[in-house]
Order: sequence, then C-alpha cells, then structure tokens
Amino acid sequence: RINGARLWAALMELAQIGATAKGGVKRLALTDLDQQGRDLVVGWGRAAGMSVTVDQIGNVFMRRDGRNNALPPIMTGSHIDTQPTGGKFDGNYGVLAGLEVVRTLNDLKIQTEAPIEVAFWTNEEGSRFVPVMMGSGVFCGAFSLETAYAARDTEGKSVGEELARIGYKGEQVPGQHPIGAYFEAHIEQGPVLEDADKVIGVVPAVMGLSWYDCVVTGMEAHAGPTPMGLRKDALQVSTRIMQEVVAIANRYPPYGRGTVGMVQLFPNSRNVIPGEVKFSIDLRNVSEALLNTMHEEMLAFVERTRRDSGLAISVERVSYYPPCPFHPDCVGAVRKATAALGYSTMDVVSGAGHDAIYAARLAPAGMIFVPCKDGISHNEIEDAKSEHLEAGCNVLLHAMLERAGV
Amino acid sequence: RINGARLWAALMELAQIGATAKGGVKRLALTDLDQQGRDLVVGWGRAAGMSVTVDQIGNVFMRRDGRNNALPPIMTGSHIDTQPTGGKFDGNYGVLAGLEVVRTLNDLKIQTEAPIEVAFWTNEEGSRFVPVMMGSGVFCGAFSLETAYAARDTEGKSVGEELARIGYKGEQVPGQHPIGAYFEAHIEQGPVLEDADKVIGVVPAVMGLSWYDCVVTGMEAHAGPTPMGLRKDALQVSTRIMQEVVAIANRYPPYGRGTVGMVQLFPNSRNVIPGEVKFSIDLRNVSEALLNTMHEEMLAFVERTRRDSGLAISVERVSYYPPCPFHPDCVGAVRKATAALGYSTMDVVSGAGHDAIYAARLAPAGMIFVPCKDGISHNEIEDAKSEHLEAGCNVLLHAMLERAGV
Ligand SMILES: NC(=O)NCCC(=O)O
Ligand SMILES: NC(=O)NCCC(=O)O
Repeated sequence: RINGARLWAALMELAQIGATAKGGVKRLALTDLDQQGRDLVVGWGRAAGMSVTVDQIGNVFMRRDGRNNALPPIMTGSHIDTQPTGGKFDGNYGVLAGLEVVRTLNDLKIQTEAPIEVAFWTNEEGSRFVPVMMGSGVFCGAFSLETAYAARDTEGKSVGEELARIGYKGEQVPGQHPIGAYFEAHIEQGPVLEDADKVIGVVPAVMGLSWYDCVVTGMEAHAGPTPMGLRKDALQVSTRIMQEVVAIANRYPPYGRGTVGMVQLFPNSRNVIPGEVKFSIDLRNVSEALLNTMHEEMLAFVERTRRDSGLAISVERVSYYPPCPFHPDCVGAVRKATAALGYSTMDVVSGAGHDAIYAARLAPAGMIFVPCKDGISHNEIEDAKSEHLEAGCNVLLHAMLERAGV
Repeated sequence: RINGARLWAALMELAQIGATAKGGVKRLALTDLDQQGRDLVVGWGRAAGMSVTVDQIGNVFMRRDGRNNALPPIMTGSHIDTQPTGGKFDGNYGVLAGLEVVRTLNDLKIQTEAPIEVAFWTNEEGSRFVPVMMGSGVFCGAFSLETAYAARDTEGKSVGEELARIGYKGEQVPGQHPIGAYFEAHIEQGPVLEDADKVIGVVPAVMGLSWYDCVVTGMEAHAGPTPMGLRKDALQVSTRIMQEVVAIANRYPPYGRGTVGMVQLFPNSRNVIPGEVKFSIDLRNVSEALLNTMHEEMLAFVERTRRDSGLAISVERVSYYPPCPFHPDCVGAVRKATAALGYSTMDVVSGAGHDAIYAARLAPAGMIFVPCKDGISHNEIEDAKSEHLEAGCNVLLHAMLERAGV
C-alpha cells in the first residue's frame, strides 16, 4: 500500500506554485510557473532514483529500471499544467500518484520485471495553446511537431519559443520511446462517483471531442444613430449559434455535450455595434456516430444562419479526437486491483480528454477515476478527499505491478 | 465664408495622432495620444490669438475676446477623444470647425460683440471611461467631479490619475464658466442625410440614452464531464438577454435602439463552462416615455430570466440622460443660416449623444449635422466630404455671428 499522507503532502507542495487567492492553481502551460512546477517534480523524481528524459515537445519521462530493461516500461502519468482557474488535483494527481508508486516500491525494495516510468505531458489543458493534449498528441502522431511548435497564445508567443525559453525543449524524438502499457489516475471531473458514493471509477472509454473556432463578421457602427434594420450586428448573429451549440448537445443525451467557453468581441466598446465576434465551440459524445451527427447539425445551422443573416461566418475545426475505448487488459487490471483492495466501484465514461487516449494509440491503456467534490474541476474550488486519492493510488500500484511483473 | 481647404488640412493633421493602419484614429481619452492631440489643438488656438483655460475635469476653453467682454461667450466645440476603432471626423470636426470660424474672423478682421469660445470636452466617447460625455456632464452638474475622477479603465487607471499624468487637470471649477449660447457641428453618424441627399441636418433633438452593466453569475465547470442538465452556464443565460435587448428596440421603431457592444467572459477558456459573463446594454429612444418603457421591459425580462434560470443576474445603470430637445433660438439660428447660405437641408434627430445636450442644460444650444459616408462612424472607415464639412462650418460661422453680434 502506498503512503497517502506523503502523496497528499506532494500535491499540496506542488499546488503552491501558481496558487490563487481562492485556493486554486493557475499554472498555464510553458509559463515560468510551469517551469518551476516541472523542476520541482523532476527533482523529486531524481531523488527517488529515477533517470529523466525530455522529448522535443517537452514531455518528461522519469524511469525506474526493472530487472529486464529490454522490456518496454509500464508507464503512468498525466500533466501538471492547469486551467486559468484550475485546481490542485486535475493532472497533478496522476503525476504525483505515479511518483508515490515509485516511492512505495523503493520503500518496499520491490524490483519489477519491466521498468516503471512516470510521465508528464506538455500542455494537456489546451487553454493557452491548441491543440489540447498537445504533448501526448505529438507523441502518438495525432499531429506533427511543427503544428505544435507553431501554436500561439493570445499574445502571439509560440509553443516552440516558450519550450526553449523555459528549458524543456528536449532532444528525444517524440514517440521514439516504447510503452508496454499505460495507466492514468485522475479525478473524475464530473459528479457521477460522488452521486453514487463510489470510491473508484473504472473508465471503459473517453468521449470524443470536436473543437472549433467560429468567426462572425458584421459591420461595426455607432449604437445610437444606426437604425435597427440597417445593422450587421455580429454578436446578435453569434448568440443564435451559441444557443444552438447547447440545443444540439441536448438532442443527444446522456453523453452529448455542447459548450461555448471563449468569446472575443471586436471592437468591444459599449456604443459600437460589434463588427466581429470570435468564439469557441466544444462538442463531445461517447458515440462517434452521434458526435459526427452533432458536427453535421452544427455546420448546417451555421450555413442556415449565414443565409438568414447575410453575414460572413467561418467555422474552423481546431481539435478533434474520436471516442476512445480503453484496452480490455488494462481495464481488466484496474477492475481486478480494485476488487482485490476491496474498494466500492462503478464504470464511469470520461467526459474530459486525457493523455491516456493518445497513449492508447501506441499501447494498451486504462484509467482510474476518483471522486472530486461536487464533480467540479476547471475551477479553483476543485477538491478531492485524501482517502480517495490514496485509494486510487493503491489501485494504480496494483494494476502497474500486475502488468510489470514482480 | 470659411476656408474649406484649411479646415480639411487641420483635420488631416490632427488625424495623424493615433492614426491606424485602416485609415482611422485610435486616440482614447486621457492617453498619451490624447495629450498630443490636445497640445496640437491648444497650440493652434494660441496661434490664432486665443487665451486658454483648462478646468478640473480637463475641459479646454479657447477664447477670442469680443467688444463687450462682460457678455457671456458664444461657444462652440466638441471632443477630440476617439473610439478604439474611431475615425477622423467624429468630434474632431466640431472642434476644428470652431477653430476655423476663429481663423476666418481673424482673416476678415471681424470683431464680435460677445466673445467667441471654442471648447473641447474630456472623454466624450465613454469607451475608456464611463460615464460617457464626462467633461460636459461634470460641467453641467449631471454628475460630480468625484464620480468622474473615480472612473477607471479596464486596467484600473482612474480619470483623476490620468488627467494629472497628461497635464490636463486644470484649476477652474467646472461650470463656473458662463455660456451665452452653444453650437456644435458634427458628422451625422447615421445614414439619413446621405440617403436624402441633403447637405445640412438641423437637429431638433438628441435621443435619450440608458447604459447598463449586466453580470450573470453561474458556475464554471469542465465542459466535458458536466452533464447538460447540471450546468449553470452564464453565457447561455446571457445570450437570452442579449437577444432581448435587440427585440425590445425593435418593438419601438423608428427611434428605438438596443445594443450589446461589450462582453467579457470569466474564465474565458474553451473547455470551461463560463462561470460569469459581464456585458453592456445600450438602450435609446427620442421619446422619454418610450425609453422608460424599454428600461422597464428590460428589467422585467432580466427578472424573468433570473427566475427561469436560477442564476444570479445583476443590472446596474451606469449612464443615463433623457432625450434633449434643443432651444428654438439656436435651432432657428441654424435653420436661418442654412437658408441664407442656400444649402439643402432637413431635420435629423441625433441618435448619438453629444456634449451639446449637457451644454443645453446651462444655455440655449443647437447642432449642425453634415453627412458621413454610408452613415458609418465609430469605425476606422468613417469618412466625410470636404465640401460638406465646409458647408457645416459656414453654417456654424453664420449662426454664431447671429448670436454674438457683429
Ligand atoms: N482532463 C482535462 O481537463 N482535459 C482537458 C481536455 C478536455 O477539455 O477534455
Ligand atoms: N457622438 C458620439 O459618438 N457620442 C458618444 C456617445 C454615444 O454613444 O452616443
């Protein structure tokens, strides 16, 4: 069994870096704070006897040798970047749970057959740079290193520049790093486990996701003298699409999701009719067919709105991954470990994307969910119970040992 | 008759300060660029033999003595601050037309009975700081100097600090400056004159305006795992109100106006359900009764939306002035001058607020409109014809001479 208090202490220490007044964490990918967080975790990894490799997209792999180092490592990990209003657990838990597994193996002087690795992947959150889950995406070849390097934040800074600046542009070619199996422990980020009063969520699949940038172009003009009938109000036309995004998701329950999370107006002045509105669209479903239907309905609605309004509207897909069912061997290992440890459990489909879905393209993968308070994440008040985090980490330990061999 | 070429040259020179790539001007109130613009105009005023007074809110009065300096001055003016996407003419025309009137009187060695003054008022646009028409508003006592000083831009800088910083926090107590009559020449900022192919708009009245800040508070949560039915999506609720603002205006034609020009989301991340949305509401009408009805309907809709959605919604009125009919003497002087000069003309209700409505609380006031291209202003492509600007300035000269006496 792992040391729950030590795991909790590591989580709290890492959460100091970028700590917000409301008790959350703001540590956006590839900022100075991300660098500090990375340095701290790498230091802990080295202190636990692990060797460290960084690849060209800044993914970090910390390795504990096995008896047979020719075997591909059994890997676990997640990310340490956060949302602008992020919490202490999203991502960070998966990385530090991996560290705690290694510390426990050290304490117990257990040598595994295959090596064990703890990874953290660059820019999982996708809030400073798109595509989301960038590091694991490049690693598995979902998109190219060049695409990732060229991504820019709203200030125009690129991933390539920022990686170099914080000293995490490594040498290793992404993906040239074998994986035997991949496990990721994570807070659920939804309300299902808490509602059902279960400790461990076994994750059969992750919903597919489709992200878009939509730009509506009207004509900025004075809010006073311009008669209503002569306006080309980009915001008014945008609100119809914003409402339809939610309506589409509501037509495909229970797993349909539709969100407009980001909006920018131009020129954004209270007595100017908005001339241009740019906003994001996030559509999800666990069924690929339904996600495609949602995509088609959204495009058809935009087309109709373009015709009805006479305004120019562009929609560009900026991220996409299909729903990802996990490997029966890894799902089975998690289920078995949970049963052996006697924790209450249920299956939970993940609504959030995770690095595990990209790792799953290269190796058998599985995930372990633990409850978080009120199902809330991507919020500074995100919270989780120490005993639940400990339970998830015990399941991780047992599942990894089963796959690595002792 | 005034010198149209000289007027045009002055407009083009002032438009260099804050010139944008698209041919517009961005010279927000109390910025370094505003300071440069003020210095240029004050320099021109001094060179034309005028004395200069600055009051505590930064309004600038440039005075040409009359034969009888005990008489209150016949004043004209406008503003030189611009929108973020402003043009070369809005405001600037009224100030430089006043300067051109004085230059012409100098050329023709005409001495007036009453003094002549050219004013420019601080922060007319209201886009960096609210309330709008701040300088003239403080001058006429619509709100206090303290209120104005305390107004802050989105970066937290206050009017008081910024006035001092650019060196335009004067000594004179606002309002302690007599006015005999006030005229303001301005581009129409709407399409009416151009449509009717008329050169001079006589302005019987200005629409009343009501501005609000609306804040909808939901709960930010992850866009993936949070089921649609459990969301408190502040943006979705906001879009209903945004649409209603336009619907209300459409119910009260032809002078009803409703605009949402400014929107800010929190946290504004594409995979976070918006937890808070702040947006502006701008309602206008030329009838005070209808403007009140629009106000009441908006509040009632917000109340209903609050009940239906269960989200917290606050609405705060941040600016208000009632419709302003101008003084028959000044409207008559403009009408008479236009007829004497032989320009085509019609009456045009102003949809935009102007410093003249606040001056009208202290003295008889009137306005002169000239056409602008496609009725567009608050846009970098705002444009006006030199011959129209010249015609408006001639009307201004004659109307002022009638009131000042020769
Ligand atoms: N787990 C997580 O928050 N991932 C970010 C990508 C997403 O929006 O699902
Ligand atoms: N003339 C003008 O643009 N005034 C600004 C105040 C308003 O929005 O009407």
